[in-house]
Amino acid sequence: MSQSLLTPLLDQIQSPEDLRRFEESDLRQIADEVRADLIDAVSQTGGHLGAGLGVVELTVALHYVFETPDDRLIWDVGHQAYPHKILTGRRERMRTIRQEGGLSGFAKRTESEYDPFGAGHSSTSISAGLGMAVARDLSKGTNNVVAVIGDGAMSAGMAYEAMNNAGALDARLIVILNDNDMSIAPPTGAMSHYLARLVSGKTYRTLRNRAKDITQKLPTFFREGARKTEEYTRGFFTGGTMFEELGFYYVGPIDGHDMDALVPVLKNVRDAKTGPILVHVVTKKGKGYEPAENSADKYHGVSKFDVITGAQSKAKGNAPSYTSVFSSSLIQEAGEDEKIVAVNAAMPNGTGLDKFAELYPARSFDVGIAEQHAVTFCAGLASEGYKPFAAIYSTFLQRAYDQIVHDVAIQKLPVRFAIDRAGFVGADGPTHAGSFDTSFLAPLPGMVVMAASDEAELRHMVRTAAAFDEGPISFRYPRGNGTGVDMPERGEILSIGKGRMIREGSKVAILSFGTRLAEAVSAAEELDTYGLSTSVADARFAKPLDTELIARLAREHEVLILLEEGAAGGFAAQVLHHLAVTGGLDSGLKVRPLVMPDIFMDHGKPETMNADAGLDRAGIVDAVFKALGRDERASSLRA
Amino acid sequence: MSQSLLTPLLDQIQSPEDLRRFEESDLRQIADEVRADLIDAVSQTGGHLGAGLGVVELTVALHYVFETPDDRLIWDVGHQAYPHKILTGRRERMRTIRQEGGLSGFAKRTESEYDPFGAGHSSTSISAGLGMAVARDLSKGTNNVVAVIGDGAMSAGMAYEAMNNAGALDARLIVILNDNDMSIAPPTGAMSHYLARLVSGKTYRTLRNRAKDITQKLPTFFREGARKTEEYTRGFFTGGTMFEELGFYYVGPIDGHDMDALVPVLKNVRDAKTGPILVHVVTKKGKGYEPAENSADKYHGVSKFDVITGAQSKAKGNAPSYTSVFSSSLIQEAGEDEKIVAVNAAMPNGTGLDKFAELYPARSFDVGIAEQHAVTFCAGLASEGYKPFAAIYSTFLQRAYDQIVHDVAIQKLPVRFAIDRAGFVGADGPTHAGSFDTSFLAPLPGMVVMAASDEAELRHMVRTAAAFDEGPISFRYPRGNGTGVDMPERGEILSIGKGRMIREGSKVAILSFGTRLAEAVSAAEELDTYGLSTSVADARFAKPLDTELIARLAREHEVLILLEEGAAGGFAAQVLHHLAVTGGLDSGLKVRPLVMPDIFMDHGKPETMNADAGLDRAGIVDAVFKALGRDERASSLRA
Repeated sequence: MSQSLLTPLLDQIQSPEDLRRFEESDLRQIADEVRADLIDAVSQTGGHLGAGLGVVELTVALHYVFETPDDRLIWDVGHQAYPHKILTGRRERMRTIRQEGGLSGFAKRTESEYDPFGAGHSSTSISAGLGMAVARDLSKGTNNVVAVIGDGAMSAGMAYEAMNNAGALDARLIVILNDNDMSIAPPTGAMSHYLARLVSGKTYRTLRNRAKDITQKLPTFFREGARKTEEYTRGFFTGGTMFEELGFYYVGPIDGHDMDALVPVLKNVRDAKTGPILVHVVTKKGKGYEPAENSADKYHGVSKFDVITGAQSKAKGNAPSYTSVFSSSLIQEAGEDEKIVAVNAAMPNGTGLDKFAELYPARSFDVGIAEQHAVTFCAGLASEGYKPFAAIYSTFLQRAYDQIVHDVAIQKLPVRFAIDRAGFVGADGPTHAGSFDTSFLAPLPGMVVMAASDEAELRHMVRTAAAFDEGPISFRYPRGNGTGVDMPERGEILSIGKGRMIREGSKVAILSFGTRLAEAVSAAEELDTYGLSTSVADARFAKPLDTELIARLAREHEVLILLEEGAAGGFAAQVLHHLAVTGGLDSGLKVRPLVMPDIFMDHGKPETMNADAGLDRAGIVDAVFKALGRDERASSLRA
Repeated sequence: MSQSLLTPLLDQIQSPEDLRRFEESDLRQIADEVRADLIDAVSQTGGHLGAGLGVVELTVALHYVFETPDDRLIWDVGHQAYPHKILTGRRERMRTIRQEGGLSGFAKRTESEYDPFGAGHSSTSISAGLGMAVARDLSKGTNNVVAVIGDGAMSAGMAYEAMNNAGALDARLIVILNDNDMSIAPPTGAMSHYLARLVSGKTYRTLRNRAKDITQKLPTFFREGARKTEEYTRGFFTGGTMFEELGFYYVGPIDGHDMDALVPVLKNVRDAKTGPILVHVVTKKGKGYEPAENSADKYHGVSKFDVITGAQSKAKGNAPSYTSVFSSSLIQEAGEDEKIVAVNAAMPNGTGLDKFAELYPARSFDVGIAEQHAVTFCAGLASEGYKPFAAIYSTFLQRAYDQIVHDVAIQKLPVRFAIDRAGFVGADGPTHAGSFDTSFLAPLPGMVVMAASDEAELRHMVRTAAAFDEGPISFRYPRGNGTGVDMPERGEILSIGKGRMIREGSKVAILSFGTRLAEAVSAAEELDTYGLSTSVADARFAKPLDTELIARLAREHEVLILLEEGAAGGFAAQVLHHLAVTGGLDSGLKVRPLVMPDIFMDHGKPETMNADAGLDRAGIVDAVFKALGRDERASSLRA
């Protein structure tokens, strides 16, 4: 860490137990030291910053009041858990965060006993916490379970399902609603308006000025069993009616940066020993670091930066990012066809649809963290003749699988799925890897499944999807920058189910689906030098397959490599199935699928991960030599 | 239809337009005639009855007040849409419902222009309706969009996501909350308690007695723009605060069987031309047919029955149903291990867990229609050392895909998935087919994926899952009765990733995953008679694969048939992948996967569907002959 960083109290804290030895009056300083340490650490590594800055006081207070790890503390999503990591024995390793072999950027069970439940996706913490609370009650345990969830995460149906169940079970569970009026983007949805009303109401303003009043009243309130005698007085602090109707005690709003309010309220909540309680804590994302507070995204995710100026050292690539190519291509198509509308789920910036929204505000919809609704909302739009593009990351599209099957595919509705972050995603790790989209989409009857091999292809696929009106269609593309190919003025409409030959050979064929194509070409060039004449084709479609192309490749080559950056069960599986059904394997074709390995790979650099998975030039060459029974040569190549 | 059925008014109604020509005073009689016709029709065919009986008056009133099909009327789930079908030109075909080639048991876009959005799964209607409302506004249309959703469906997060978005968009959308205090089972969850409080409050009782008062006040209320001037007076009819906080006008509760209340209220709502409105209509499931009203499940789904007595003609099979074997086996294991808990999502009866709940009420959890929460709730339980069994139909498990990946598989938590209704389901049709569970589960690292080939195997798998504690494990089994094999006293713990040889042959091998095994054996017997000595093996596991068994079958046979009742991309795909990677196909093995066809098959009898898919004895024999290049022989066999 920086030489200049003075953290005398924090230096004495190796675990929450150390923290709990301090006086309550020291907590303010400890929080300040945690904040300084956090800024210093992330300035060196990059990572999630704004969310962590907002919960510094809350984190200190929670570990001070609750007996972690016996008391279970669950961080929803987990990108706000950096201060938690600093206080739970991982301070020294903070400067390895999100780097290969280093700490995860999220909470993770295998990393610490203080992380009882890992995450990465939002809105899971109340469900998990309820499971833990029920388990505790079944075991006649006495520990507390605390789930910290953001206001943005409250737009997801899963959080509602969990509250609905918790209220009915009347389980002793504490939910801290961390309301910073932000998730990654400003929140949308009626719930966020509701929370804003709660906070702006005069009650909150009054409460801020009399924190001691609250805490004196709280114990009386809970201990006298007010709940049983007069149900509707539960709205004691008023305004939290919606949570109360769901069976929760509502406490708040509380200023989440005021240690003198936080600690006594949490103590009282801890001692209440009643059914589910929701504590509404108001925080400021980016709190205490001016460049973050003043930034539009509150430094949600940053690269390395200068602590004094806040300037981030973004290394700009020459080629445009796939996301920006998707965005500009869709904007272009939308200019030609007013039926095109765009839907995202709380990711306007990440999907590039923020730019679309600027130009076409009436045709752009951010539905909040609500992928299920997003997809069926698109189905409704498509049923009326609109052309919806649902732009959702591969990993988050998992949330809407049933809606894709039941509302879109069965009804053959032409919803367009723009699947960003497909394949390895690097620093975000296994929770965010885009591994399964092809394997869960390709089995669906009538679904058209494409993958872009470069940014020009992506542009073609956006136009193809806009033009295709017979049913659902999807196209996947990875995180990061394109390959730098020349970009067409406008995309072409691709022929559905037709791939393209990239180079002609005679002995080996590589059929690639998506962005490993460049490595396939590179491998082919190397194989040629060994006298192994190699064809390369870009499949473009996992469904419908280019059966003519596949038959030709199978017939005219000794080895056929199937290549994709996805789990087994996707593109290669569809090709193998087709070959088997049509007898294309009967002649002894040496077919080799190269796919992601059957493990959840930890975070690292995408290129390293692809190399480890054998999905790069060396891996392809290796597979070909092995298929040909020339193992030694192959090993020497890799060395 | 029955000779005795007199329906003079209904006989004049071929379409809603005909209905709208009647006087309002005739609607009561029309409703009575629809109800009689509905009972008569379903008594002859079987199907969903209770839900339809409950909405007879509502259906008549909706089509009377709204200009369907220009006004969009969306029935959530759709099993209550029988009266709607009777009134929208499908009365004559009602006696074909759920039968092969007949009407679907749900709303279906391809069946009628009066079905603007199909369903089968619950809680999708508000999302779809919002899409239609937004499309209308973009097109500057004037039509109404009405979504009818049950109180049970309100426990699903998707409905909440949609309301949250509708409230924020302030879209002109009408949601009819059909509150019958039932879905398939009595509802659970805080929301249902909330609705019960609304209904039991004195407001409702008062309102029932002065329906005219309401309707006189309504237009004034809406037309004077009360909303803008005094936001909180929106709670005019009081009690619907939760919906109002989400940005909806709340109107109700209304007696859903009182035509004199329904029609004027719906007219006023129609003419209000304001943002989203929720009309809370209270109905009685099974209304107007005594045997249904008195039955616990309100005749939710029935077989043919006698109209006078209500007696259903259930043809009992000799073998126990798979569901009951799962249930009794789990009860047995739970008696041996108190860590076993069971979770279902509003399907206590359908999953057989109602019996578990009777014996172990504290260890049984019905979380409502909330599959996402169900799975992560199980993950929380598992993280504390409990052994949760999540019993969810294959088709509904699609709702929880991300939770399986993100909360269970990545964290290697030992959640047990009991996947009922896997494979063809018959009369419920494509929305309920269990086609994709293997293809979406098998690609997940660390997931153990089993399928039971008969009811004894299912018992083994329940015990195996109970004993397995290293990570997630699933077992699929079909709808319907077992094969009648001898049942073991208690299940055995199967060796993970090991299949079993059923019969030994030398020329052909059939490797079956799940319940097509009996057909495989039957096909093998037939093939033997043609001199084609046939091995049969039960794979038991799609993951991990029995690689030893597969290698042996591949090595020692000329033809290898891979058999499963699931979509391409599942078990067979995993075997093909493994064979390709290990070079097992290089020798020219004639491998043929037999899977579900790549279409969404309409409803029919499961055995017919399996035959059409070529997954029966004849289909297997046919595939073997074709693989061996003996096409003519094969065709003659099928004839």
